[in-house]
Amino acid sequence: MAPPSQHCFDTVNGATNNGVVPVVMVDTPQQKLPCPTLLGADEFRRQGHQVIDFIADYYGRMGDYPVHPSVTPGFLRNQLPGAAPSRPEPDAFGSALRDVRDLILPGITHWQSPRHFAHFPASSSTVGALGEALTAGINVIPFTWTASPAATELEMVVIDWLGKALHLPDSLLFAGGGGGALLGTSCEAILCALVAARDRKLAEIGGKRIVDLVVYCSDQTHFAFRKAARIAGIQRDQCREIRTCHANMFALSPTELRDAMQADVDAGLVPLFLCATVGTTQTTAVDPIGELCAVAAPHGVWVHVDAAYAGSALVCPEFRDVIDGVESVDSFSMNAHKWLLANNDCCAMWVKKPCALIAALGTEQEYILRDSEASDVVDYKDWTMTLTRRFRALKLWLVLRCYGVDGLRHHVRSHVRMAEAFENMVKADGRFEVVTDRRFALVCFRLRPREEFGGEKTANELNRGLLAEVNAVSSGPYMSSANVGGMYVLRCAVGSTLTEERHVEDAWTVVRDRASAILQRMEIIYSVVSRSVRNLG
Amino acid sequence: MAPPSQHCFDTVNGATNNGVVPVVMVDTPQQKLPCPTLLGADEFRRQGHQVIDFIADYYGRMGDYPVHPSVTPGFLRNQLPGAAPSRPEPDAFGSALRDVRDLILPGITHWQSPRHFAHFPASSSTVGALGEALTAGINVIPFTWTASPAATELEMVVIDWLGKALHLPDSLLFAGGGGGALLGTSCEAILCALVAARDRKLAEIGGKRIVDLVVYCSDQTHFAFRKAARIAGIQRDQCREIRTCHANMFALSPTELRDAMQADVDAGLVPLFLCATVGTTQTTAVDPIGELCAVAAPHGVWVHVDAAYAGSALVCPEFRDVIDGVESVDSFSMNAHKWLLANNDCCAMWVKKPCALIAALGTEQEYILRDSEASDVVDYKDWTMTLTRRFRALKLWLVLRCYGVDGLRHHVRSHVRMAEAFENMVKADGRFEVVTDRRFALVCFRLRPREEFGGEKTANELNRGLLAEVNAVSSGPYMSSANVGGMYVLRCAVGSTLTEERHVEDAWTVVRDRASAILQRMEIIYSVVSRSVRNLG
Repeated sequence: MAPPSQHCFDTVNGATNNGVVPVVMVDTPQQKLPCPTLLGADEFRRQGHQVIDFIADYYGRMGDYPVHPSVTPGFLRNQLPGAAPSRPEPDAFGSALRDVRDLILPGITHWQSPRHFAHFPASSSTVGALGEALTAGINVIPFTWTASPAATELEMVVIDWLGKALHLPDSLLFAGGGGGALLGTSCEAILCALVAARDRKLAEIGGKRIVDLVVYCSDQTHFAFRKAARIAGIQRDQCREIRTCHANMFALSPTELRDAMQADVDAGLVPLFLCATVGTTQTTAVDPIGELCAVAAPHGVWVHVDAAYAGSALVCPEFRDVIDGVESVDSFSMNAHKWLLANNDCCAMWVKKPCALIAALGTEQEYILRDSEASDVVDYKDWTMTLTRRFRALKLWLVLRCYGVDGLRHHVRSHVRMAEAFENMVKADGRFEVVTDRRFALVCFRLRPREEFGGEKTANELNRGLLAEVNAVSSGPYMSSANVGGMYVLRCAVGSTLTEERHVEDAWTVVRDRASAILQRMEIIYSVVSRSVRNLG
Repeated sequence: MAPPSQHCFDTVNGATNNGVVPVVMVDTPQQKLPCPTLLGADEFRRQGHQVIDFIADYYGRMGDYPVHPSVTPGFLRNQLPGAAPSRPEPDAFGSALRDVRDLILPGITHWQSPRHFAHFPASSSTVGALGEALTAGINVIPFTWTASPAATELEMVVIDWLGKALHLPDSLLFAGGGGGALLGTSCEAILCALVAARDRKLAEIGGKRIVDLVVYCSDQTHFAFRKAARIAGIQRDQCREIRTCHANMFALSPTELRDAMQADVDAGLVPLFLCATVGTTQTTAVDPIGELCAVAAPHGVWVHVDAAYAGSALVCPEFRDVIDGVESVDSFSMNAHKWLLANNDCCAMWVKKPCALIAALGTEQEYILRDSEASDVVDYKDWTMTLTRRFRALKLWLVLRCYGVDGLRHHVRSHVRMAEAFENMVKADGRFEVVTDRRFALVCFRLRPREEFGGEKTANELNRGLLAEVNAVSSGPYMSSANVGGMYVLRCAVGSTLTEERHVEDAWTVVRDRASAILQRMEIIYSVVSRSVRNLG
C-alpha cells in the first residue's frame, strides 16, 4: 500500500522568509551515498504521491496567484548556488519541492491561471498532465516500430482519430493513403514539410538551384515559418511576405499571391512552398485555403496549412468551413497542446504523401521516392527531424478517450461563448472598438482613437498604456498585444481550462476601470493643456 | 486528504481475455457530458494517485516482462476502434489504464527493463519521471524570459550546473561568456549548431555559395548529423564521411580529415562544419577532439562535439581525457536522457558564441551579429529551432539536486563496472572475442570466425543467428548489433537503471548457452558434411 500522501503546500514546514527558502547544500564526507533505489517502486510511490498532491494543491490555488510575476532578471539565478551539490541534502526531494513552491512558482507566469488571456492558451487537463506522467514513467523511445511497437501503432491510431475528429479529409489520414506524426511544435511540422517539398522540387530541377527557391506566406504568418525557411537554407530575401490589410481581415489574398508567384517565375526563380494559416497568431485571421491552393497548383507549389491554434476548433462542425478546400493541401499541422487539453507538447502533422517526407528525412539513403500507399510498418525516425522521440501518442489517446470528441467540443465551445461574451461587453462600451471579427476565442480590441487626444497619432500609446495598467493589477487578467495594420491592439484569448464566465467578466471590469482611469487622466491633461493654450492665445 | 489510492495492476478487475480487454464505446444520448472538472484539484488527485501506483507497480514488475514483445505489425491497430469515442465510457480513465496494462504494455519494448542492453540506455529515475510529471502539471511555455521568468532562469542555472559537473570549459558556460539550452534531442542540437555555422560562413562568402559548403564527419557518426546537414540544405554529396578503421578503433583520423579538407579547398569548395563524436553509437569510439580542432581551425570550420551517450560519463573525472582539447570546440551536446537519469527527453547543448545561434535563429531580423557576452536576459526562442518549448530545466534541476554529482558518478561507475564484468566473461571464453576496446559501458563482441565453418565468410551470419537466438529467449537479455569494418557484432550496453550484476551474469549465461547450442549444431552439420564429402572422395 502507498504511504499516506503529503500535501506539500499544507504540511511542509519550510523557513519561508518572504517566500524564500535558503537553499542548503550538504556535503559532509560521512554522509552515505544517496539513492539506493533510483527507480524503486516504493520510492517512486512515496515521491510520486507527494508530487501529485503538490500539483493538485497548485491547481486548487491557481486563482490566488498573480498571473504574471513581478520579478526582475536574475531574481532566481542570484538565489541559487553556482554549481550542483556533490551530495544531496537530507530529504532532498522534499526540500526541492519546497523550493519549487517558494522560489520557482512565484517566478513563473501561470499559464494555467483562469486569468491568463495572453498569447494563446496552453491548454491543460488532468488527463493530459497525467498522460505525460505515464509517458515519462514508461519512458520508451519509439524511433522505429521495433523499438516499441505499441507506441508506434498507437501514434498511427491517434493520428487518424484526431484527423477524423477535426474533419480532415481521408487523403491526409493513414486510412486514406496519407498519414501523420506527433511532434513537439508547429515549427518542426512546418520544417519537415518544407524540407520534403524542397527535396522533391530539387529532384526535378537540380540541387544547385536551391538558391532559386522562393517561399510564400503573409505578413501575419507566424515567425516559425520564416525560421523554418532559414533553417532549410532558403535565401532570406526569397521569403515573400504578402501584405495583408484590415479591409480583408488580414487574410492572405490569392490575387496578391498570384502576382507574387508570377513575378518570381518571370525573374527566373522557382516558387516552392506556401504556408497558409488558419487562425493567425495576431488576430486569428483565416487564409482562404481553397483559393490559395488554386493559385499554387499550376506552379507545383507545396501548400502547408498551419492551424496551430484554430485547428482545435475543428472538432466543432460549425468551424469546418474555415478549412474549405483543404482536400488540395499537401500537409496540415495543429497544436493539440494549445487548445485541446493535451498539455505541452503535442503538435500533430498530417501529410498527403508520406513518401516525400521519408525521401527527405529517411535514414535509408537508397530510399526511392515513390507514390505508393504508406506501408504497414512506420518507422517514425524517417518521418521527422529527430531520431529520439517521445511517446506522445499515449497522452493524446488518453485525452481523446477520456473526454471524447463531444467533451472536446464542449470545451472549445465554452471558450468561444465566453469570448463572445467578452466581445459583447467591449462592443457595448462606446469608448472601445473590436478591431477584427472574432472567429474563435480571441478578441482583439482597443480604445478608439479620440480626436482631442491626437487621434490615431496617439492611439497606440494610449492602448499600450492600457495594457500595461491592466497587467499591473496583480489580481487581474493577463493579456497580450498585437500590432496589425499599424494598430496596437489588446488581445484577450480565452482558453485556459480553468477560466469561467466570472473570470471573463472580472477581466472586462479591470479593463473598463483602467480605461476610465486613463481617460480621466487624459481629460485632465487635455483640459489643462487646452486652457493654457487658450490663455496663451 | 487524498482518497485511498488504487493499485491498478492489483485491484482493477478487467475482463482479461488472453490479456485483451475489449474496448467498449458508449455513446448514448441520455448520458451526461463528462468531465465537469477538466483541471480540478480533486479529480487530479484521484486520477494522479492511480497513475503513480500504476507506474510504481510497473517498475516493481519490470523484471517479469519479456524485454521485447513478440507481436506483429498491426497487432494494436487491429484491436482499437477506427475513431475516437464521441462520449467517454463510464470510468474512462480507469478503463484506459486497464487497456494500457493489457493492450499497450505487452506491446512495448521495455526500455527500463534490467535486461535491456540494446541501443543505448534511456536512463530513468524516480526523480526524472516525476520531474516530467511536475513539468506537465505546471505546464508553462517559456519561449521568452517574460513568458515564464523562473523557467528561463532555471534553465540557465542548470546548463551551467551540468556543464561544470561534466568538466566542460568555462568558455561554454554562461559564467564564461558562452551558454546553452535544453532541447529534445541531439538531432536538434546539431542542427542548431550547423545552421549557426552556415549563416556565419555565408555572411562572409555570400549566401549564394550555400551550394559550395562541405561538412565532415566519420563513417561512424550518427545519422542525425547527415539528417541535420540535409535539412540545412547542404548538398548531399558534400557531406564527407571519413572512413575509419579497426586498427584505429574507428576513431576519426586527423590526417584523413586534413586531406579531405584540402581536397575540397583545392576544388573551390568551402569547408564549413565538423561533427566529432565522443562515444559513437556503434562502438563508443572517441574522436580525438584536440587534434581535429587543430586541423579544422585554419579553415574556419565550426567544430561540434556530439557526446550524446558518453557525455554523461564526463561526470567522472577519470573520463575527462576523452574530451581533451574541448576548449577549442564551438559547440557541444549530450543527452542527459541517455545515461544521466533525466528521462526522455533532455538534450543539453552548449555554444561558445551564443550570438551566432541568435543571428541564425533569432526572431529579431535586425539582430546584428556581435561577439559580446550573453546579455542578462535570454529569450530561448532565439536559441533553438522551436518557439514553443518545454520547461525541461525543472526535471534536470531536480535530478542534479536530488542525486548530486556524486550520486550520478556512482550511477555511471556502477554500469561501467558491470560492463567490465561482462567484458571479462566474454574474454574468458575463447570462442568469443571483444571486437573494440571497451571505454564506457558498452561491450562489442562476437563469436570468433572458425576456419572449419568458413572463417570470416560466415562469421556475420553466425553472429546474426546468435543475436536472434539470444533475443528470442523471453526471459533473457535484449541486445542489439553493430556493423563495423565489415563485421557484424553484438552490442551489450549496460545502462538501465534497474540493471544489477546478476542481470549481467544472467545475460552472459544466455549468450554462452545460445552460442554453445549454435556451435554444436554447426559441428554436427560440419561433421555430416565433411563425412559425406570424404565418402564421395
